[in-house]
Amino acid sequence: MVNMVTIYGQTEDEKQLKIFYDLALTKGKSYDWLNHLSNQIGGRLSGSVQAEQAIVYTKAELDSLGLDRVWLQPVMVPKWVRGTPEFAYLESKPGYTSNVPICALGGSVATPPGGVKANVIEVRELSDLEKLGKAKIQGKIVFFNRPMDPTLLNTFQAYSGAVNQRSSGAAEASKYGAVGVIVRSMNLRLDDYPHTGSTSYGDLTDAEKIPAAAISTNGAEFLSTTLKLDPNIQFYFKQNCKQLEDVPSFNVIGEIKGSTKPNEIIVVGGHLDSWDLGDGAHDDGAGCVQSMDVLRLLKLSGYKPKRTIRVVLFMNEENGLRGGRKYASEAEKNGEKHVFALESDAGGFTPRGFSFDSSEADFSTILNWKSLFEPYLMQQFTKGGGGADIGPLKKEGIVLAGLRPDSQRYFAHHHAENDTFEHVNKRELELGAAAMVSLIYLADKYDLGSAN
Amino acid sequence: MVNMVTIYGQTEDEKQLKIFYDLALTKGKSYDWLNHLSNQIGGRLSGSVQAEQAIVYTKAELDSLGLDRVWLQPVMVPKWVRGTPEFAYLESKPGYTSNVPICALGGSVATPPGGVKANVIEVRELSDLEKLGKAKIQGKIVFFNRPMDPTLLNTFQAYSGAVNQRSSGAAEASKYGAVGVIVRSMNLRLDDYPHTGSTSYGDLTDAEKIPAAAISTNGAEFLSTTLKLDPNIQFYFKQNCKQLEDVPSFNVIGEIKGSTKPNEIIVVGGHLDSWDLGDGAHDDGAGCVQSMDVLRLLKLSGYKPKRTIRVVLFMNEENGLRGGRKYASEAEKNGEKHVFALESDAGGFTPRGFSFDSSEADFSTILNWKSLFEPYLMQQFTKGGGGADIGPLKKEGIVLAGLRPDSQRYFAHHHAENDTFEHVNKRELELGAAAMVSLIYLADKYDLGSAN
Repeated sequence: MVNMVTIYGQTEDEKQLKIFYDLALTKGKSYDWLNHLSNQIGGRLSGSVQAEQAIVYTKAELDSLGLDRVWLQPVMVPKWVRGTPEFAYLESKPGYTSNVPICALGGSVATPPGGVKANVIEVRELSDLEKLGKAKIQGKIVFFNRPMDPTLLNTFQAYSGAVNQRSSGAAEASKYGAVGVIVRSMNLRLDDYPHTGSTSYGDLTDAEKIPAAAISTNGAEFLSTTLKLDPNIQFYFKQNCKQLEDVPSFNVIGEIKGSTKPNEIIVVGGHLDSWDLGDGAHDDGAGCVQSMDVLRLLKLSGYKPKRTIRVVLFMNEENGLRGGRKYASEAEKNGEKHVFALESDAGGFTPRGFSFDSSEADFSTILNWKSLFEPYLMQQFTKGGGGADIGPLKKEGIVLAGLRPDSQRYFAHHHAENDTFEHVNKRELELGAAAMVSLIYLADKYDLGSAN
Repeated sequence: MVNMVTIYGQTEDEKQLKIFYDLALTKGKSYDWLNHLSNQIGGRLSGSVQAEQAIVYTKAELDSLGLDRVWLQPVMVPKWVRGTPEFAYLESKPGYTSNVPICALGGSVATPPGGVKANVIEVRELSDLEKLGKAKIQGKIVFFNRPMDPTLLNTFQAYSGAVNQRSSGAAEASKYGAVGVIVRSMNLRLDDYPHTGSTSYGDLTDAEKIPAAAISTNGAEFLSTTLKLDPNIQFYFKQNCKQLEDVPSFNVIGEIKGSTKPNEIIVVGGHLDSWDLGDGAHDDGAGCVQSMDVLRLLKLSGYKPKRTIRVVLFMNEENGLRGGRKYASEAEKNGEKHVFALESDAGGFTPRGFSFDSSEADFSTILNWKSLFEPYLMQQFTKGGGGADIGPLKKEGIVLAGLRPDSQRYFAHHHAENDTFEHVNKRELELGAAAMVSLIYLADKYDLGSAN
């Protein structure tokens, strides 16, 4: 009898997933939304006009879906602006210069108006700074040139292994008297796009902050080779970025009220802000429109969730995480019970699985669903983080999950000018939305995180 | 003791696969080769100058690898030429025309010099022709407009379900007096690229052959909508293609002689010819350069295969399969024993697994290796075809296999102007080569197909 029920249950779930996938692949709306976000609005850096436009647009689109409630949640966000485009060159001797593509790292200070020109010292690790000491660093530009490890199949691991150069390089190099920092772009491919991303000065005073820029991977190879030929070359760069006062912004939220457990909340989301260089199609326009489509597909399918299903488009993931923190603190303040949160923030590529941050018991439950995703070629159900924006929701009991798309191409676009709509494939994007709504359905039906 | 051996064996295999993957991802040569094939040579239609150049280039590259033998295997191939670009428009009334993008199907006859202009009848299935009958078809252009099924996760299945319109549409429509055929491109995406591919007239006489062209998916939607508004519109198209006499060409072959069983042969290959519209980067430049790199990576790793490992770059897969047939017939004639053949002809995207055409016993052996590929995110080990070019090798005992890359994007490029190098990602291509050399290694080590 138990077997019968199990078999019957599986068949019902199989049918339901097929409904979701068919709807997503034939009537999905994520691609149209992404087209608008990318091509009509563009890069959505926190505090920018485009970020505002994206809030207005996505709120209006959610309003049109007939959800039970749509609202904006106010949050103050940092406002960093790039200013006029950056400029850099190598100078082998006076008058002999070669331009290289750079971009300021998010949060960096500007150079002096006339730029910075200095000798360069190349390092691989943050710890190299201590080995070299002030004597060899003082007055120079530190060039962090450790590539992402190409042998790692999960490119996010390769990113994790290299990104401290970008996030802490300037703060560390300043302590040894460096006058600027140039960081090899977090990109596995050799090309001409510099990749931005946030850098933090930690507790440095304003006077101690030194300008930091990313150089394209081809530029990094060129600079490194040139330094080997002549360690005395000079590097010049100029950037005009600025950290302004915080400004008001919003998380965009919509929900379908639960039929029997409306006070238990399941969140699905991505972040609405992006960097300013591209149009933020993969990072994270894709996650936003997939999350919006999850609620739309739920309604379209006729499935009535027991719990409240909430889409949250978080603001300011890239340079502050203020939206994620605000959402979690409001939830805490209002005594809301969140049982499950799913984020899509790894690009709009073919989904390969999910990662889960959960108890062992909940993970066992989840593994029971794995076979349901086999027909949809989702085979990776692993332990791991959910996503930056939903991180602040973490507490005993809640299950956090992240969509895991194929990661091979992601870092060729991440935070760069070529993170654009034409690099997102419609079907791949829709398969992500289908996988997400399927997981939300199972989590709701089988009370994931709810017993805690 | 058996367990010990198994565990030891697995560990050794794990190490060997790691060596192959690391080499492919750090010292792979497939991407450079593909760059040359795509950007220096271009589309390589059988009998074309570019096909000749590709033969010369790949032979020279194989010569440089220090293989035991490299040679050209002569084969006569059909030579079909597109001529001046095709041209088409819809005419709602005299003088009111809208151009639509078309391309002649491979093997099609030309239109008369002044083109063909006629009313259009839209159908979904070949069987619709019989239902409509001669009365409704005679003198018209038949428009086959059945889309590929977007709900199929394996897009090759969707292709199989739609391609009879292209391959047999003209032959069938001619029997009902049609004057031409327009086929919706085999493309899951809505865009402006017409996709060519071969069409066959079966046993029609020259006089019975009618011209056949593909229309872009956007063009097909436009034509269909227009027909609904006004069934009396006329469609005009003109194409100048021509079937010439067969010409001499070659399969390009190289091999590493087996150390202990040199008379048993393992083949790895792809097809060197392509269609003429793009540069054939995915179809099948990718498969060729991956196969070449399999032999190079074997040598680089120091692994000495027991059997002879042969790379074969087949000529004329697209419109004749003459290379695959010739290779198999020569093997038969020379009494060569082929035990295993692996083809890569499904694009240079992230590899997801392999399909196998084998006995149950061999498939059991193969499934033992599946876990070795888990760290490399290759989870799909299925039964299925190997590939068109290696198909003629099929006989009792031999195992045929095909690399199965992610298929979501493939048909957006297949046989179209946008099958170009920039749509191939270096890592994805290299992961395919790594998977292939790993499988070849295991097949050789564990005597796949050899007991038969």
